[in-house]
This record gives sequence, structure tokens and C-alpha cells, in this order.
Amino acid sequence: MDFTEIAKKSKKASLDIAGLDTGVKNRALNTIADELESKRSEIFDANKIDLDSAQILVNEGKLAKSTFNRLKLDENKMRDMIQGVRDIAKLDDPVGKILFKRELDEGLVLSKVSCPIGVLGIIFEARPDVISQISSLAIKSSNAVILKGGKESINTNKKIMEIINSALGKVGDFPQNVIQQVFSHDDIAQMLKCDEYINLIIPRGSNKLVKYIKENTNIPVLGHASGICHIFVDKSADIDMAVKLVVDSKTQYPSACNSVETLLIHNDFEKKNELLAALQLEEIKLIPKPDDWSTEYGDKILSVKFVENINQAIEHINTFGSGHTDCIITNDSENAQKFMNNVDSSGVYHNVSTRFADGFRYGFGAEVGISTNKTHARGPVGLEGLTIYKYKLTGSGQIVDDYSKGIKQFHHKDLS
Amino acid sequence: MDFTEIAKKSKKASLDIAGLDTGVKNRALNTIADELESKRSEIFDANKIDLDSAQILVNEGKLAKSTFNRLKLDENKMRDMIQGVRDIAKLDDPVGKILFKRELDEGLVLSKVSCPIGVLGIIFEARPDVISQISSLAIKSSNAVILKGGKESINTNKKIMEIINSALGKVGDFPQNVIQQVFSHDDIAQMLKCDEYINLIIPRGSNKLVKYIKENTNIPVLGHASGICHIFVDKSADIDMAVKLVVDSKTQYPSACNSVETLLIHNDFEKKNELLAALQLEEIKLIPKPDDWSTEYGDKILSVKFVENINQAIEHINTFGSGHTDCIITNDSENAQKFMNNVDSSGVYHNVSTRFADGFRYGFGAEVGISTNKTHARGPVGLEGLTIYKYKLTGSGQIVDDYSKGIKQFHHKDLS
Repeated sequence: MDFTEIAKKSKKASLDIAGLDTGVKNRALNTIADELESKRSEIFDANKIDLDSAQILVNEGKLAKSTFNRLKLDENKMRDMIQGVRDIAKLDDPVGKILFKRELDEGLVLSKVSCPIGVLGIIFEARPDVISQISSLAIKSSNAVILKGGKESINTNKKIMEIINSALGKVGDFPQNVIQQVFSHDDIAQMLKCDEYINLIIPRGSNKLVKYIKENTNIPVLGHASGICHIFVDKSADIDMAVKLVVDSKTQYPSACNSVETLLIHNDFEKKNELLAALQLEEIKLIPKPDDWSTEYGDKILSVKFVENINQAIEHINTFGSGHTDCIITNDSENAQKFMNNVDSSGVYHNVSTRFADGFRYGFGAEVGISTNKTHARGPVGLEGLTIYKYKLTGSGQIVDDYSKGIKQFHHKDLS
Repeated sequence: MDFTEIAKKSKKASLDIAGLDTGVKNRALNTIADELESKRSEIFDANKIDLDSAQILVNEGKLAKSTFNRLKLDENKMRDMIQGVRDIAKLDDPVGKILFKRELDEGLVLSKVSCPIGVLGIIFEARPDVISQISSLAIKSSNAVILKGGKESINTNKKIMEIINSALGKVGDFPQNVIQQVFSHDDIAQMLKCDEYINLIIPRGSNKLVKYIKENTNIPVLGHASGICHIFVDKSADIDMAVKLVVDSKTQYPSACNSVETLLIHNDFEKKNELLAALQLEEIKLIPKPDDWSTEYGDKILSVKFVENINQAIEHINTFGSGHTDCIITNDSENAQKFMNNVDSSGVYHNVSTRFADGFRYGFGAEVGISTNKTHARGPVGLEGLTIYKYKLTGSGQIVDDYSKGIKQFHHKDLS
């Protein structure tokens, strides 16, 4: 089918699902979870086909082993995937929340009410579990979605999508075409151009993919191209805390976007050599002169720089960072405040591991992704990030001319 | 100067102003107002030069009379312009607001705090009063701004900018380069490409300008290309109210974006002929078969269509509207709810004029513009639309590994 036709169907579906009852949406989510559960073996079979093809590519050196691992669904991933759908059913409905209510004048009441964004375009790489996760988030937030997955997982993707849509077909009142999938590479280019129907693009994959998408569309993109996180060890830092936090931030999951990549150390920090020695004992490779200060290693490697003062640290971060998550380790609360106010990042931390930057750890109950955008949603994004709002104004025949001529006056009383 | 150099300076200025004290910002705004006041005659002189050149173009038929009028600063506009700056000084500071505060675990506290977006790029046409308005909004919200005005008002723009920057120079602690201006047409193309330094583009001008900008940048754009607003007169509408509301929505200021362009009438509305006759008496030209249903007349002209039922009305609006502001006139509260829930527009109104869609009327105290976007800010946008947020996390050495291994658990207690 032509991409525009698919997009038009999505737009229609987005209007159909916009006002759908919370109960119906939750029933849809639980039905999806049940069907995924009962058809696990079919999914594993489909995944096996993809894995066999992928294994050949790995053997030929044409596919990274890490991609193969992301592609592979095992019992644990399957359990998490299904539980993830059920968890989203349990969350509050982000749609229909009254964000404020204000009487503009007697009998003229304005409400700001949360509502869905519309149509989401999702472009993801090897991980097939993205389908059920994003589909569930879309359903809960009353958005329609068009998914384009990587070719390596095409059989798994098709099977999961088939199960999801078969489940949705069993739920009375659930509109059609809310979850659609496209397959050809050409669909990506078309999706990026389709600003008439698609309201938000969410890329899930490599930095390269996200960068490409951000540069090639004028549709808003939610995500981050890179995660160059910093830790600044101030003069007054506690050595034990510094070691503990840098080790956790670097080694707890080195390929995560919220892992630290650059360590800035105050020149006057007395225990600097002790710190560096301790990190080396943890098998962290220290690079004092990196090729550039914006390298995301994704491994147990750390760029290290000594700075004269906190201002230099802040300037370094604002110049070379990616606006993701940056931390100061200090016992000087004034410096902590200065750092947190002046570092222009989505997360500014004091005496904690950068690895806390995560929607679940923040208590959002779900995570759409982590955004380094400066508009709409920043940092770990929960369901709320998939909503916008509309203004509802109700009256009884009020006209602007009366206010313009001074016959009537606004009184702007907040009701809630 | 090279545009990239200007943009870099803006980025630096945005970091300098990000944490600036509310008092300093308000002092800056009041100083600007004072200087504009005391140098009114210089501004009028500069405006006279622009008007003389513009008059020749008008005479030659090369410039629209309406553009000439927007260009012209008179005593009223000058007074409003200066008062506008003082009004913004009086508003609450939108920066530094704690949006939520949550204890993730004992001693591990997360706050979501509002902060500026960064660098705003403003592209505007003839109206020179945009400079002081947008500059004031930017200062109050701690953003840096690069303005590019139309060539017709270049002398006025330069003079106002000179006065603003001279005023800012007199305010102690106010950082440099917060307000910058560029002049060449080529600067627009460069601004639209400058996503490394510019975080948000705000166009102020014709639909054509806004459309061009939206299509030619991947920087987020705040605004609306068109305002195709609808009124649906339901079967149960009150005839007097219908006449009053349609007349106000169409004639109170026909060239405004929130004026109604299409009137949808329920086929079974008994007084439909009476309504049409009354509108014609008000010299509103009715077009039953327009060239297309997305024409923004900007004049006392109205497309008219009869529909079979409310669903047809909703579908028409969601197909041909611009998502700006749409109204139902009805005495049937169920239909009113249905309309307001299912029409996908920034403003959905019941029994009131579409002309209420405005930041001042909504009680925002200032208006950045009206947005038909589905992300970040929608509808009339106040100062809040020039902010985003950051997450501050403070602790005492907490690491993720402890939570990952189950040694510690999050308890997610909301503190405010």
C-alpha cells in the first residue's frame, strides 16, 4: 500500500481513538498481553528464522554481535515484554486531565485539558520488543502509530504485530488501524516527509539513526542522538563517594546513554591520584587526551580532564556535552547549586550516579525514551510526553466586541 | 558578521542569562520602557524614513497598503508598545518554578524545574513593534534572541534595537548579546539551518512566511500557518445567539487568525434562512461553493455548508480546518461535549465567539503567538511557552547498582 494511504488511515484512527474510554484501552492492553503470552512459541519460532539469517551475517562479519543480541528474544525478554504491556495498563490515563480551569468572566469558563498528539511515527532498529512497548504506550495515550522496524527482525516484527492486531480485533469498540507497520526502506524517507499526517517521530536505535532522522525531517523528533555525560569531581569531594559514583556511572551498564563518558577533576582535589588509581583497578581505561571531547565510548573507557575551577567544568560541559545528564560531586553546596543552575542539561545531578536518568527510576511507570530536546519534553519521557492539550471554552453567547468596547471586563478567576 | 558567529554569541548569552535574577530582568525591562519613552521622537523619525520609502512602493503598486499600515508607528501603537514592555515586567518569572518534587528514596530527591529554552530565532515582517515585544518576552523568560525583520522597516528596527541595547548596557549585571538583530535576506536561510545553536524559531508574519519557514527547517517552529476557524450551528441552536456569535466571530476583526471562515449549519436547524438573512444584513458575503474549504478570507466573507448531522460537521472540521479554533452553537450539552472532545483543534468552543482565542483574554498576561502545533505549546502561548524544564537530582552517594541488585528500593514519594 502507498505510504500516504497508510498515513491517512492512521490520522483517521488517531481521531477515533482520541476520546476512547480508559476501560477500553486497558482491556485492549491486557488482551494484547494475554495473546502474546499464549502465542509465545509462535513468536519464538519467528524470531528463530530472523536469528538464523542474522547468524549467517554475523559469521560473515556483516552484522555486529551486539545487534544479534538485541534481536534475540529469550524467556526473560519475553516475560519483561509482556509484563511491560500489563504495567502500562495499570498507569493513570494521561488523557483528559484538567491542567487548569479558569473563569474568564461570569459564565465564561476556560479549561486546559490534556489530549493525545495524534499520529506517532516510530523508526527502530533490531529490538523487536519495541513494537509491543511503543504500541502499548500509544494505546494508553490514545495516539495512533506507524512502526518501521529493522529488516533483521522482520519475521519477529510481523508476528508480534499480527498478534497485537488480532488481540485488538477482539476488543469491542476498539478502532481500526491504530497500530500499523511498514516494511520497506523507502517508507522511512516517506515517513520523514509526511508532516501532513504524522505529528511526532520517535527513533529508537543507534546515534547514527537518530542523527539522520533529526537532520532529515521537519516533523518534531523525540529522542537523543548521543549521551555525552560528565562527572565533575570538585575540590571538596569525598574520595570514597567519588570512586563509588564514577564506577557506578561508568560500569553499571557501559553502553547505556546515561553512562558517564568524561571525568572532569578539579586541579586542587587532593586525592586525584587516588581516584584515578581506584578507577584503573576497576578496569576503567582512562584517556587523558581523547580524539575529541564528545566521544561516546559505550564501554569501560573514560576521557579525563583536569580543570582549574568549577566555571571551567561548567563551560566544558556546555561546550562538549550533549545536554543529557551531568553530575557534580562536591561537599560545597554553593558549588552544587551553581553547577545545577548553569549546566544546560536535561539532568543536573549532585552526588549521585548519572545512571539514575531513567523514566522508571524517576517514578514515571513507563518510558518513551530520553530526550535532549529543548522543547516539548526533556529528559526521561513518560506517558505525559505523548500528550498535548486543548483549550475548551464554554459560555452562553459571549462576544469579544463587548470586552473590546469595555462593556464587560474579564476577571480571570482560577477555579482549580 | 558571519551568522554562525552571531549564533555562537547568542548561545553564550543564553547561558549567561539563564540564571539571571528576576529583579535584574525586571529592571532591564523597565529601563527599556523608559528609554523607548524618552527617545520616542527618534523612533518616529526613523519610522518616517521607512514610511517615505514605503509610500513610493505603495504608489507604484509594489507594496500592499495593509503592509504600510502595519509598518506605521503612531502615538497609540507607541504607547501600547511601551506599556507592553512594562506589563511583562509585572508578570511572574516563568523560570525556576518547581513543577514537581519527589523523593525517589530516602535522601534522593528529584525536582523538575522550569528553565529557559535557550536561543530563539524570530523572523518577522513589517511590524516594528514586534522587536520590543519579543525582546521583552525573551528577557523575562531568560532566553537569548536573534531577530530578523522585514526590509521595509529596517530604519525603525535598527533604531529600536539601538535603544534596547543602550538601555540594557545601563543595567548592571545584564549579560551581553542577549538581543541581537540580523538584516540580510540570506540570514533567514542561515538561521533556518542553524539547529546547532538555535532552539526555537518564532515566525511573525503572513501565512506564506510561516509556511515557508515550517517547510524549510528542522528547528522547532512555534506558530500557525493559517487560521481556518469554523462555527457549527447545531439543530438546537438559539437563533439570536447564533447571529450574535457568527457576526462577532466574523466581523469584530476579520483579518485576525481567530476569525471564523466557514459556517456549518445543521440541515434541520429550523431558522437557517433567518440566520443567513441576518448575516447578509451585516454585510457578510456568503459563499456556498467556495473554491476550497480551506480558504482564509481575512475579510467579511464566509464559506457556508449544510451538514446532515454533528458527525459530518466534526469530520469536515478535522479534514479542512487548521486546528486553530472551532465552535459549536447548541443547546444540546451532549452534542457540545461530543464536539469539544472530537474536534482536534487547539481551541474547542461552546456558545462563544471564536475571537476569544487570545493569550490576553485567556489571562496569560502576554502572548508569544498562537500555535497550531501538536507538541510543546498549543493555542495561545504565554511566557510559559518559552520555557522547558530540567531535572535536578540530589543525593549523598547513591548508586544504581544497589537498586538494580535489590539492595535498595525506590519509594517515589511526592513532596509537592
